[in-house]
Formats: sequence, C-alpha cells, structure tokens
Amino acid sequence: MAHGGGGQLTDELIADRILPRLDNDVLRSLGDSASLMPTFNDRVALTIDSYVVQPWRFPGGDIGRIAVCGTVNDLAVAGAVPIGLALSIVVSEGFAMADLEDVLDSVAAAADEAGVTIVTGDTKVIDHHDPPEITLTTAGVGRRPLQHHPDLARVQPGDRVIINGPVGDHGLAVMLAREMPDMQTTLRSDAAPLNRVIEDCWHGVGNGIAFMRDATRGGLAGVASDVAAQTGWHVVLREDAIPVRPAARHAADLLGLDPLDLANEGKVVIVARPEAQDRVLALLGAHEDGPAYTKPTVIGEVTDQRDGVCELHTTLGGRRVLQKPYGEELPRIC
Amino acid sequence: MAHGGGGQLTDELIADRILPRLDNDVLRSLGDSASLMPTFNDRVALTIDSYVVQPWRFPGGDIGRIAVCGTVNDLAVAGAVPIGLALSIVVSEGFAMADLEDVLDSVAAAADEAGVTIVTGDTKVIDHHDPPEITLTTAGVGRRPLQHHPDLARVQPGDRVIINGPVGDHGLAVMLAREMPDMQTTLRSDAAPLNRVIEDCWHGVGNGIAFMRDATRGGLAGVASDVAAQTGWHVVLREDAIPVRPAARHAADLLGLDPLDLANEGKVVIVARPEAQDRVLALLGAHEDGPAYTKPTVIGEVTDQRDGVCELHTTLGGRRVLQKPYGEELPRIC
Repeated sequence: MAHGGGGQLTDELIADRILPRLDNDVLRSLGDSASLMPTFNDRVALTIDSYVVQPWRFPGGDIGRIAVCGTVNDLAVAGAVPIGLALSIVVSEGFAMADLEDVLDSVAAAADEAGVTIVTGDTKVIDHHDPPEITLTTAGVGRRPLQHHPDLARVQPGDRVIINGPVGDHGLAVMLAREMPDMQTTLRSDAAPLNRVIEDCWHGVGNGIAFMRDATRGGLAGVASDVAAQTGWHVVLREDAIPVRPAARHAADLLGLDPLDLANEGKVVIVARPEAQDRVLALLGAHEDGPAYTKPTVIGEVTDQRDGVCELHTTLGGRRVLQKPYGEELPRIC
Repeated sequence: MAHGGGGQLTDELIADRILPRLDNDVLRSLGDSASLMPTFNDRVALTIDSYVVQPWRFPGGDIGRIAVCGTVNDLAVAGAVPIGLALSIVVSEGFAMADLEDVLDSVAAAADEAGVTIVTGDTKVIDHHDPPEITLTTAGVGRRPLQHHPDLARVQPGDRVIINGPVGDHGLAVMLAREMPDMQTTLRSDAAPLNRVIEDCWHGVGNGIAFMRDATRGGLAGVASDVAAQTGWHVVLREDAIPVRPAARHAADLLGLDPLDLANEGKVVIVARPEAQDRVLALLGAHEDGPAYTKPTVIGEVTDQRDGVCELHTTLGGRRVLQKPYGEELPRIC
C-alpha cells in the first residue's frame, strides 16, 4: 500500500520498475506533466480509456497490451497520429510486483510496436481485493491535420463497409480464460496497434475513406448499428462475408454468444467510397505481419433507404435487424 | 453492470446522465477521441492522474472536484494553459446512480470554476465491491509556450520558497471523514483549481519564477525535499512561517501526523527570485476568493550549500532534516 503513497517508496517503484521499462527522454524528467513537440497548425486529438479486463492476462495479450492498443487505435481512427501516451496504474494491495513488471513489459512492447512513447504517468495503490486487481487508464494525444478527416457526416449511400479481419477473437479469448481457464483452445486475442496500417490507408486513400472506427466494446454490431443510426442511412451487412475464425465460431456457439457482438482489440471498420474499395483492401492486406491484419474484407454497404437501420443478411438467407448489444454480453472484457 | 458494457445502456447512461452535466460542443460529438484547437507554435503538455480517495465525498469536496483540480493544477505548475480534459470513470456495480450524478455535477462545477471543458471520456463498470467504489482518472492537455518555463534546473541559491496558503487541510479532512465520520470539525478540503492564479503569477512575474509544484501527495515536505534533492542545493524552511490552521494543527496532533506530510489539493509551492517575492505574494493574495488562496507566505529559501538536503528550522528553535514521507501517511487521500 505504501508504494502508492507518493513518498519515497513510490519514487523507488518508479525508478526501479517503471522507468527501466518505459524509458524515454520525456518520461525521465518525471514531471507531473509531459511536454510534447509543437503541433504547428494541426489540431490536437485527445482520447482516454480505462481497462478493467479480467483476467488481466489472457491468450494473445494482457491488460498492458490492450491499454496501449486501444488508445492508439482510438486516435488512429480519428485520423490522428499519436504523439504521446499517458498511463495511470491503479493496483490493489497484494498485486504481485512480478506481475506488475510483466504488465509494464507488455505496455513497453506494445508502445514500441505502435511507435509511440509513454510520456507521463501516475500510480495509486488501493486496499486489498481478492483476487488482486489492476486497472490501467491510458490517455493519448495525437496530431490531427486540419484538412479532411473521417467523420460519420461523410458517409453516403453506396459506401462499402470493410473490416480488416475476423471478429470476436478477443472477447472470446478473455471469456474462456476467465470462465474455463483449463480449456484448450487456439483462440487468442487480436489485440494489436492499428495506427500504422490505418495511417497507410488514410494517406493512400484520403477522401475515399468516409469513416473509421475500431470495433471494441459492442463489437462489429455496435459499430455498424451506430453508423446506421447516426447517419440515418440503411446499412446492410452480409453474414457470409464477415470473417469469423472456426475456433471463434465454435466457442461462441458453446457460450451462446454472437461473434458480431463481441469486443475486438485489433479490428477496424472502414466505410469507404466504392471506387476506393480495392485500394483500401490492398493497403489493409499489405500489413500481414500479425493475426490482426489478415483477411481484409468487404462485409456490406450503405444503401439509400432513410431508416437508420442496420440489417444483417444471414448465411441461411434470412434477414434480421442488427442491434447494438443492449447491456454487456461479456463484462470486463477490456 | 450492463451500463458499462458499451451497448445501448451505456449510450443511455452517457446521454441521460453525463452529457447534460458536462455539455460542450466537443464532447457532444461523442467520438472516442476529441479534437482540440490548433496550438500554433506552442508545445503540448499532457498529464494524467487517477483518483481513489475514500470516502469519495468529504467536507469541502469530493472525488469529482479533486479529479478536475488535481489535473488542472498539474498543467498550471508546468506553465501550461489547460485546453481540454479527458475523464474516465470506473464504478463498481451497485454504486448509486444519484451518487454518480453528484460526482458528475461536481466535475462540471470544478471544470467551470477552472474554465476548462471535459472533451472526451470513458465509463467502465466492475464487479460489486463493499462499499461500492468509484475511481476517476483525468488526463489534461495544455498549451505550453515555447519560451521559458518553470523548471527545477532554474532554481538557484537565494530563491525564496513561497506557498499560497495553509497546509494539511485536505489530507486531514479526508482522514477524519473516513476514520471518525461523526466527529464535528471545521476542517475542509482545500481542493481548488489554481490555474487562474498561477497563470496570473506566471504572466505577471515570468522569469522571476524558477519553479512551481502543487503540494499534493507527499505534502509540502515532499515538494521541498524534492527541490533540495533534485537541484542539489540546501533548502531551509521555517516552521513558524508555514501556515497551518489551528483546526488542522489540532487534528494532526490528535492523529500523530505532521501537516507538512499531508496532501493538499489547492496549494502551490513557488520558488522565486528574491526580487520577485513581493510581486508573487501580491498576485497570489489578489485571488482571495476561496480558502485555497488565503495567506500567501514566504516559508523558506534556497541556500548555497551543496548537500541536497531540506532542513526545517522548528518553532522551538531546533533543526531537523525534512524528508519526503517514506510510504503513505494517509492511504487513499486523493
């Protein structure tokens, strides 16, 4: 508990455990705030997310990895280039120091992968919980050029709905790790920083991209139904086009869940003009360096009906309204 | 629990409870990130802090108030002007909606007082705790002019150590509210946004100010011992000059604590050139609109000994080394 008190023990925790892992010039100055490079005429994008995933470690990642990926991805889909992350750690008394080090290593590795640095942070220790808990909160600042940017208002009939790979893996990997820790599965979280691939798309296609969002909580269903509801257009998704790994399909059936409702941490939904479709698919496909980037696919389109509904054409030939999950299919998944 | 799932219930929580309280153009767009005004040639300052104070409501404030004040103050002491805050909320299942609304009202009021807006946010719900828990994490972005800024490296012998008012009230108010909730006391947290008064000082005195820091966790002792240790100079504080309210002195004696070690949420320590001293005191004194701003006082100075020690000349004529608190005098105080 004393490690979170802001005294000498907190200094030691920072000097011995945190700095060696996240080292960079800005963080090393250990101010309570960080000073980042000038942004000239760009706007500044700011995002924040808290991560409460349980268990904190799961196949394919851990809380440190998603705390970096989620925040970097939120900036990227807004058309912003990350220039610095701030990380706040809240652990309960009794959380093992070795585990904290693993989380920090994971933060450092993911930040490295994304090409961003953790420039400032905070650490608090709260009372004992059983099991010991860790919560990370990551804020990200990005540069956002003043010209065009992805925006729901730019979505129009005829636009294609594209996703960069299979859905549901993250939510299911976490759920299985929590509920059936002894089960053998090949499912792994898709957690990945998407900023490089998104920047490539954005620079390569520009105005041909109307809107982007990462499909985290609420899953693909959440993003697609938001696009329909908030633009007022009718969106059609084709179930047979939506990539779902067999292992994910199997696990979802077992648990009575729909992979479309489940959180992803490495999936981006791009709404693009039809003439930009091939270029977007090619640019997404060029980043085949991880499971997150495989199989970019056109999964639907925006039609000119003005009902604000997202409709799923099912594999069996049926049609149903795709709704944003009501509450929480899977609690504490990110 | 379902309110934190990212589905329809989360949308309702945001639309019905959060937006009406924190309303502004940027937040209303409800992106996962916010876009802030261009910063021209300024640098961007970024800060983050998690707030875990227990109880979450205490005399003089609550967790919402300190979540805004702490972050705004961190930016201000770095010489930055806040341009936007991001707020992440983690509540445990069962935390009353009315209480959450009170916290949000308090966030809104403090942000208003500071003249900043909450531009983006996140909400997560975790499992039931007893008693129900709330954690806020606030990140702040500020503009920081490229010219001079407060920096420990600018501290030199002869500099005066100035504080804007009495110390210890926040830590003691929280401690009493937790440990002796039925005790009658006039003690109240000093939580206040200091950005306006600090900006006034900074603009009025400029280079005459070498360094500033808010005396939160670790208290005045933490700041003063850091100044000594990190600059290598010997710092002398005079105990009889350090303002402590009688009620705080009394409560500290009762609890066996030193007010110098206790967290404040509305106190700034300014290290200034001797010729700037009177101007700093006048500017601090001009903001007598709250308990936080009363009695700006010179409490010590930087001397030319090179031992990196902070020494306290006690009221009784003794001398002792003032050390940063080792662990945590008071857990969960901010």
